[in-house]
Amino acid sequence: MLKIVKIGGKLIEDEDKFQSFLTDFAALKGPRILVHGGGNFATDMAQKLGYPIQMIDGRRITDENTLRIIIMTYGGLINKNIVAKLQAKGNNAIGLCGADGQSIISKRRVVKDIDFGFVGDIEEINTGFIASLLEQNIVPVFSAISSTREGELLNTNGDSVAAEIAKAMSLHYDTSLYYCFEKKGVLANAQDDGSVIEEMDRKKYEELLEKKVITEGILPKLHNCFQALEQGVSKIFLGDFQLLQPGVKHTKITN
Amino acid sequence: MLKIVKIGGKLIEDEDKFQSFLTDFAALKGPRILVHGGGNFATDMAQKLGYPIQMIDGRRITDENTLRIIIMTYGGLINKNIVAKLQAKGNNAIGLCGADGQSIISKRRVVKDIDFGFVGDIEEINTGFIASLLEQNIVPVFSAISSTREGELLNTNGDSVAAEIAKAMSLHYDTSLYYCFEKKGVLANAQDDGSVIEEMDRKKYEELLEKKVITEGILPKLHNCFQALEQGVSKIFLGDFQLLQPGVKHTKITN
Repeated sequence: MLKIVKIGGKLIEDEDKFQSFLTDFAALKGPRILVHGGGNFATDMAQKLGYPIQMIDGRRITDENTLRIIIMTYGGLINKNIVAKLQAKGNNAIGLCGADGQSIISKRRVVKDIDFGFVGDIEEINTGFIASLLEQNIVPVFSAISSTREGELLNTNGDSVAAEIAKAMSLHYDTSLYYCFEKKGVLANAQDDGSVIEEMDRKKYEELLEKKVITEGILPKLHNCFQALEQGVSKIFLGDFQLLQPGVKHTKITN
Repeated sequence: MLKIVKIGGKLIEDEDKFQSFLTDFAALKGPRILVHGGGNFATDMAQKLGYPIQMIDGRRITDENTLRIIIMTYGGLINKNIVAKLQAKGNNAIGLCGADGQSIISKRRVVKDIDFGFVGDIEEINTGFIASLLEQNIVPVFSAISSTREGELLNTNGDSVAAEIAKAMSLHYDTSLYYCFEKKGVLANAQDDGSVIEEMDRKKYEELLEKKVITEGILPKLHNCFQALEQGVSKIFLGDFQLLQPGVKHTKITN
């Protein structure tokens, strides 16, 4: 079973939770891949450097300066620190962005209503290269940066990176996908962190959608999840920084 | 013949020269490794962020902020941009620091008179991992950052990274080492850029040392060169950004 684990930016910002997560991740058995976001590091850096943040309709635009900062912080500082910490915990990790080994090929998002700037939508995962690393017991650690075939680096949604890697690798491996974020899973009541829906399949998902139990915040994640399950991923788990620990409440999603 | 090419930071800052160099590098035949410095990018970033630069006896100290900036700029921005540009030129490159795959293991420099901070002296090169990449026709691109076995990232001299990789890989390959810097080679007259000494062996080197022709600036580089030749490297070439082009004046060093 190949495990693809996504750790959200907000968890990375909390040093204690992040260390706890990395200890659990390093203790996993078998082949595994880590995908990380960057949280507010890029925003903080942009503020320190005095770069204005471009927003349209409440959505962040990746202009040239933002892209440079994302490459520095997500692709450099955070990625290499995760690798170093995993090495210290006995995992032979390697830090990658999508340009490395042409591992995540994307095309720049087509401008419809909004030009999001240097943002990529994934076209292809280089499964052969990733498999060759896994076969050497290497743990790939991906920052959420992809690259066009022409070598243009692009900011890419971290959840999508994890889902696309899981889908593509499911041709070679039985894969499961883990999303670690701020909540313990999908909540039946957004105000109650204890109201975790522990099991969900497509039927239940559609019921909950109809009853409007699913909140807007988690909709894109769940949409991605069911798409991934349709395209070969075996199981998906949603939970907080302790998701990889046995016995901790979480949401398990199957088709 | 495995070629290990070091490109100095000052050449990276000059966009035209750097592009020309990358085109030549990408056109090389056979296995090759690129090692890059970072030039003034880190200093510029430190200034923008308002971090004071620590100097002792005219030498830069790598404090914690400096290390973070080096990981961001050398390990992130510069490294990933080089990888993307090489991909665009048809080379399947991968960007690495010493923590990735435990490729460059160092120990923190022992404090004698001066505490240089987070600076590493290389102890071991993971030749098996590097060879496995080369066998897949992957071009490793190293930033000058190493890691202790305990996963502490350390700023490391780029010339040393190139020399240590070349020495270690010479157990598996016939290796040659290329240093691209601001000059066309070792100069007989430091004021005359045309006075390139085109061939140098140890005998000539010692003669020139005795005559005090060798200037202080290039002494550490040459010392490294002859040490590398003694430890298995076949040939070393010193020159400017056009060093990889045929027919361009340079210095060739043999034992």
